[in-house]
Amino acid sequence: MKAVETIPYTLYKGTFIDTPELGELRIRFNCLVGVNQQGVIDFIKEQDQITAKYDWKQYTGRYKHEKEREADIQMFLDNHGRENYFNYIKIEDNKFIFPGFIDTHIHSSQYPNVGIGLNIQLLDWLKIYTFPLENSFKMDNLQLVNDIYTKIIKKTLGCGTTCASYFTTIDNETSKIFGDLLLSFGQRGFVGKVCMNHNDDYPEYQQEEKHCVEDIKHLKQYFDSKNPDNEDLVKPIITPRFAPVCSRSLLTKLGKLSQDEKLPIQTHISENKGEIDLVKKLFPECSNYANVYDNHNLLQESTILAHAIHLSKEECKLIKEKNCSISHCPTSNTFIASGEAPVKKYLYHDKINVSLGTDISGGWDPSILSIIRQSILVSHHLSMKSGNNFDKLSLNDGLFMSTQGGAIAVGLQETIGTFDIGKRFDSQVIDLQTGNLDLFHWQLVNDDDNNDDKKLKMLNLLNKWVFCGDDRNCSSVFVNGRKVVSK
Amino acid sequence: MKAVETIPYTLYKGTFIDTPELGELRIRFNCLVGVNQQGVIDFIKEQDQITAKYDWKQYTGRYKHEKEREADIQMFLDNHGRENYFNYIKIEDNKFIFPGFIDTHIHSSQYPNVGIGLNIQLLDWLKIYTFPLENSFKMDNLQLVNDIYTKIIKKTLGCGTTCASYFTTIDNETSKIFGDLLLSFGQRGFVGKVCMNHNDDYPEYQQEEKHCVEDIKHLKQYFDSKNPDNEDLVKPIITPRFAPVCSRSLLTKLGKLSQDEKLPIQTHISENKGEIDLVKKLFPECSNYANVYDNHNLLQESTILAHAIHLSKEECKLIKEKNCSISHCPTSNTFIASGEAPVKKYLYHDKINVSLGTDISGGWDPSILSIIRQSILVSHHLSMKSGNNFDKLSLNDGLFMSTQGGAIAVGLQETIGTFDIGKRFDSQVIDLQTGNLDLFHWQLVNDDDNNDDKKLKMLNLLNKWVFCGDDRNCSSVFVNGRKVVSK
Repeated sequence: MKAVETIPYTLYKGTFIDTPELGELRIRFNCLVGVNQQGVIDFIKEQDQITAKYDWKQYTGRYKHEKEREADIQMFLDNHGRENYFNYIKIEDNKFIFPGFIDTHIHSSQYPNVGIGLNIQLLDWLKIYTFPLENSFKMDNLQLVNDIYTKIIKKTLGCGTTCASYFTTIDNETSKIFGDLLLSFGQRGFVGKVCMNHNDDYPEYQQEEKHCVEDIKHLKQYFDSKNPDNEDLVKPIITPRFAPVCSRSLLTKLGKLSQDEKLPIQTHISENKGEIDLVKKLFPECSNYANVYDNHNLLQESTILAHAIHLSKEECKLIKEKNCSISHCPTSNTFIASGEAPVKKYLYHDKINVSLGTDISGGWDPSILSIIRQSILVSHHLSMKSGNNFDKLSLNDGLFMSTQGGAIAVGLQETIGTFDIGKRFDSQVIDLQTGNLDLFHWQLVNDDDNNDDKKLKMLNLLNKWVFCGDDRNCSSVFVNGRKVVSK
Repeated sequence: MKAVETIPYTLYKGTFIDTPELGELRIRFNCLVGVNQQGVIDFIKEQDQITAKYDWKQYTGRYKHEKEREADIQMFLDNHGRENYFNYIKIEDNKFIFPGFIDTHIHSSQYPNVGIGLNIQLLDWLKIYTFPLENSFKMDNLQLVNDIYTKIIKKTLGCGTTCASYFTTIDNETSKIFGDLLLSFGQRGFVGKVCMNHNDDYPEYQQEEKHCVEDIKHLKQYFDSKNPDNEDLVKPIITPRFAPVCSRSLLTKLGKLSQDEKLPIQTHISENKGEIDLVKKLFPECSNYANVYDNHNLLQESTILAHAIHLSKEECKLIKEKNCSISHCPTSNTFIASGEAPVKKYLYHDKINVSLGTDISGGWDPSILSIIRQSILVSHHLSMKSGNNFDKLSLNDGLFMSTQGGAIAVGLQETIGTFDIGKRFDSQVIDLQTGNLDLFHWQLVNDDDNNDDKKLKMLNLLNKWVFCGDDRNCSSVFVNGRKVVSK
């Protein structure tokens, strides 16, 4: 079990890249970061703060690295006075450390269906592909459950996803197993046991209202007892599937439960026009889809609204007022032709926080790196439709949504998402010289480059990473200071 | 040098999948295909034609495979009376053989720029990124030339591209080197030494008219002398870059050269609205962009028109009349926001042949598998804009464009593109159980499935391949019967 492994105090040295604010990219070369035994970033020293004593240019090859290491460690001991055991990990040039990706919308149980179901619209898609598969998650089907849940966690971790907000199924016992597997592989995760108490399309897959609420309380106790000390690695998240399969009474109870138990919320909103019409018919007393959730106290600062493609002006205003986050799922929205969410507008005009979701299995790709790419491409399609360049998302926008935007969405903006003192060390080491990418010598950062050249090269490399890279470039992954993937 | 290796007579046994007609998918399980010493498909026996004598169900494991092999070889000897040396290659269950991909638009010299240049429009993009790089392809820069050309050929071959129509640069000597490398790695290819005799944006990168024509004649002689007997593996293709950088006189000479030397043609058309306006200004005597090429006899049956996003009704009619092909480049068109080509309309309404191009480096991805995926996704965006489901491309449409559609575009529809007797064996073996894809046991084809179940499973697996697969699933590649990639 990864989550109980002790964490040695570790010094990481190399290029750190993150996005502290929307649109802002921070690149820190030759940065020394100390991560303590709780997995928390203890100090950060940038290049100019630590290189004064040594002119490293005079050293070459292995010897230079030894001198660098020696200087780093001396500086650490001078300033921190520690003599305990600690690790020193040097991330080589042309590799960099990026925050772990945060996937804010993913159905772990649907993983086998990725890539299947092209050309079928949302409501039919649920009936034909989704509900039958989800309904097979039961304790008498443990081999299947373990197989699917293990594969999706290993796959997303290998793609650099250190934290995800999952939908499992309505079944609570196998949702517990899913949480156990998260702890076992060491991924930070929210377990969204699905709540739905009516389902005309597939009546065998629904659950009584009271069981929904009891199950979530039970999950909370279960994970509280399982998490390592002071680390809420695995947590339940209240998950009304979406308004059309929940009664008013269930929605009310779930809203109350969120406040009583201080639990976050996730659900779907405005994915498809047929779905929006259905909600209007089912909740005639509500002015719009967002209002259905608000009426039942489900729009909280900790609420993740997945898709949010066709929001009205009033809905955007309400979502901003309540400080909810959107999970944008571009692959899914294009695959099942649900629409193109106006993300740039949400971010810069409505000032709503937007994060990214793979939406397995509406989306075919478990990698958030691919989702960044597709979010940019979908925004280009929007821009070609509107004739307005404003609609285009930048690379920095995509990188922000995949990390700090995700951290805000899951309520962990003070805990993960960037490299800052006091945050937990969830990160991935990116190596662009492995895998599928071909780089050329003049594209690589080297010691002779001045800082501006280095930054320009690094920007081009980041573009190449997002467009031409894949899981092969993610060479190791850390969650809470623990190495959970090493390739 | 791959291209001169002798080809042993080989029996291939396994699942063959191809697209003989637009929209039609042909899946042949347990199919036996003989490929002769010229790399030509000699015979094809489908399952029911060869299994009569043996009830394989009674055999299991290794023994079964031996019996199968024995029966195949006996059948071969009975019917073909050969006793010479031959190979027998069994493609295991859940692998399949697909025709090699044909990339009908790719700039080999631009490979280093993939993934870079987001958010810059076509004409600026050429000036900032493309022309300076292309201009460095000279004989005094051989290391760079070899590095780039080697990497792009190896990369595309590894992605299953067995044939490509390349743009190199205006430099003829290094274009010869590119052709040599194609022969050396064994890829079938068209070498498009670029013709452009004026270039206001980057004046140092252009060439006098007479040299353009001489160079192409010289290239033809050069490759004629280098190709193996009876195998036109490498051939020049007449390549006026696009109308804005070619004089009327150059265009006329290139049109004539194509007819005199029986050489195919490739160029760009209607990629970007700024470009279309420029062409209108430069050629006021022509009724539209396509008419510029037609006026100079450049619209032939062997002409590939890349992009073709914003064609008028008249242009579509003209292109159909002349039987030209379009090379659709969806990644490029979205990346630099050029537009969304109405491919479904071209294919089914205008009856124009459409093939696929990676358009390295306007497109970021050297894999035609990714281009199939993106062609479908772009068609979904078009469909969401038009509200018309008709606009959506199917998986079969994409697979056709990537193989037989490409073969028609390069004028080799009788030679490659499908598995039929008399065609040359350009193919890739796809293994979905390696690489990045997670499959589950119930998704795999097995002996107990009836033929309908097998086909349904195979359709889902093809969907998974196109959406979730990558180069890792391409386990070996054959060009003209020679194995050129083995992973």
